[in-house]
Amino acid sequence: MEATIYDSRPLAHHLFTELRHEAQRFQQQHGRAARLAQVIVGQADAAEVYRQQLEHACYHIGMNSLTLALPFATTEAELRQYLITLMRDPTINGVLLLLPLPEHIRQQAITDVFPVEKDVDGLGPRNAGNLLLGFPNFVPSTADALLQVIRDARIPVQGKHAVIIGRSNIGGKPIALALLGQDATVTICHSRTEDLARITRSADIVVVSVGRPHFLTAEMLKPGAIVFDAGINPVEGRIVGDVDAEHVREVASFLTPVPGGLGPIIHLTLLRHTLLGPGIPE
Amino acid sequence: MEATIYDSRPLAHHLFTELRHEAQRFQQQHGRAARLAQVIVGQADAAEVYRQQLEHACYHIGMNSLTLALPFATTEAELRQYLITLMRDPTINGVLLLLPLPEHIRQQAITDVFPVEKDVDGLGPRNAGNLLLGFPNFVPSTADALLQVIRDARIPVQGKHAVIIGRSNIGGKPIALALLGQDATVTICHSRTEDLARITRSADIVVVSVGRPHFLTAEMLKPGAIVFDAGINPVEGRIVGDVDAEHVREVASFLTPVPGGLGPIIHLTLLRHTLLGPGIPE
Ligand SMILES: NC(=O)c1ccc[n+]([C@@H]2O[C@H](COP(=O)([O-])OP(=O)(O)OC[C@H]3O[C@@H](n4cnc5c(N)ncnc54)[C@H](OP(=O)(O)O)[C@@H]3O)[C@@H](O)[C@H]2O)c1
Ligand SMILES: NC(=O)c1ccc[n+]([C@@H]2O[C@H](COP(=O)([O-])OP(=O)(O)OC[C@H]3O[C@@H](n4cnc5c(N)ncnc54)[C@H](OP(=O)(O)O)[C@@H]3O)[C@@H](O)[C@H]2O)c1
Repeated sequence: MEATIYDSRPLAHHLFTELRHEAQRFQQQHGRAARLAQVIVGQADAAEVYRQQLEHACYHIGMNSLTLALPFATTEAELRQYLITLMRDPTINGVLLLLPLPEHIRQQAITDVFPVEKDVDGLGPRNAGNLLLGFPNFVPSTADALLQVIRDARIPVQGKHAVIIGRSNIGGKPIALALLGQDATVTICHSRTEDLARITRSADIVVVSVGRPHFLTAEMLKPGAIVFDAGINPVEGRIVGDVDAEHVREVASFLTPVPGGLGPIIHLTLLRHTLLGPGIPE
Repeated sequence: MEATIYDSRPLAHHLFTELRHEAQRFQQQHGRAARLAQVIVGQADAAEVYRQQLEHACYHIGMNSLTLALPFATTEAELRQYLITLMRDPTINGVLLLLPLPEHIRQQAITDVFPVEKDVDGLGPRNAGNLLLGFPNFVPSTADALLQVIRDARIPVQGKHAVIIGRSNIGGKPIALALLGQDATVTICHSRTEDLARITRSADIVVVSVGRPHFLTAEMLKPGAIVFDAGINPVEGRIVGDVDAEHVREVASFLTPVPGGLGPIIHLTLLRHTLLGPGIPE
């Protein structure tokens, strides 16, 4: 079998066009551009790449992006205060705290102050709680983007067995709940999982969010499996995913590539949240 | 194989003794007994049984139980106001809203007002969010009780494959996250799951929270599986679980029976939350 390699450009183009239109409308209604605030603490390479991509996309859409770059030595109390100030600023529509944070900052102590309305990547406990309880508001953008790709590519999900590798708060766990919300049977795997390949080989759908190039190999899949690669790994100046795409494409029936798969949809989803609030397009 | 049938009496006795001691201490320190408020809306048989059991346990421990029983026709706004009042009452240590609610009351609109500190069964979005994010505060008592039984019975969990059948907000989902927090690989199944028996047969640990007598049969298990029965089904005046215990005990290596398994530990856990706050005993 030769997998369909998903091309996200048509969906990205559709989302981009909609957002440009909505950004213009926002500008007319409010006399200013819609604004995303990005907060980055210390030097985090992957986060900085992501930040720049979002800034770039804002520019092209007609939104406004503001970055607060804080030194590594920023204390928890200071960061908390900066976030409260940004969240209260009426000219800011959404706030994104880029991860990972330095180790001396506990994510819980910080995201606690996030009001649901401006927590556009769903990092705070109230948005997370609503996701768990089945009343989703802002869903982390990777999970939300995955649902859009699933719909765009007409992937059947109900009753299917989806195996998610990775259990981070912005990757694996929200992805699992998003798929559960679509009536998939979901399995969450991680570094302590015994016999991972046996589990992935039983899956109709595999989502990888691990952060290791070539992690998911062809031997780990059943023929015809549907594979979503959420990995973003800088390797020698290029970005590669978590899937050994060269071999997986010969076994899977569908694969989102890196670059060009989920990534652009994730960016646009985050900006859509900032501009239009929760929910995905019709 | 003949399964070990878990006897929760020693653990229950241990918890009970600790709580009685702590209730006395509370009384001495505050000049009043610690108090649980239970709120029940309309006629819900299973919930009423549960309410009485908790009231009874409060009495024996030396805690105080208060019930607000509201008519079926109570509006969302009224219930919300009652809950706010109870949550603010400094003489009330914890508030339990019994489920299910009448259909005209949306759980989301109600639990939104729950402050983390008094939401002793972890129903509200903030406690749920902390559970999802891995910063658990009040965990729903069924999941919390399960962890205590696992520790008491020295069941190895790390890396094991745990299959949870049921995805309710007070049963399956928090149980899955609690087991994920103990480094199990977790699968969540539900009514749309295709080929359920194939999935349960791959499990080292099976937890059932479905609400159907005899739902889990011996054919659905691999020999030696560990089985937790979270079902509480009134059948002809008795309480039965979700497991076909008569046959399952010949295949499984461990089974929590109904009655006498998880049930008493769940009650005591809820009262422990009310008296001592989040966390499980050492
Ligand atoms: N574009 C985006 O918005 C976006 C969003 C999310 C993720 N990503 C990308 O996705 C990847 C993962 O990031 P993340 O933040 O979701 O995760 P993360 O926080 O980096 O954690 C990695 C996860 O993979 C698991 N893992 C590590 N080694 C494993 C192994 N050998 N077998 C099975 N599981 C293993 C870990 O398990 P333990 O929990 O047991 O340690 C952990 O849950 C990265 O490439 C990241 O750049 C991108
Ligand atoms: N003592 C306690 O504190 C306590 C706490 C929790 C539960 N319980 C007991 O646990 C049982 C379940 O209650 P609950 O509140 O957790 O759940 P619930 O809200 O009654 O929902 C039942 C769950 O079982 C699933 N289900 C139904 N039929 C199924 C089938 N044929 N195959 C696979 N899954 C199926 C449903 O799937 P869908 O989501 O697809 O509909 C749903 O997720 C009841 O007996 C209840 O009394 C007791």
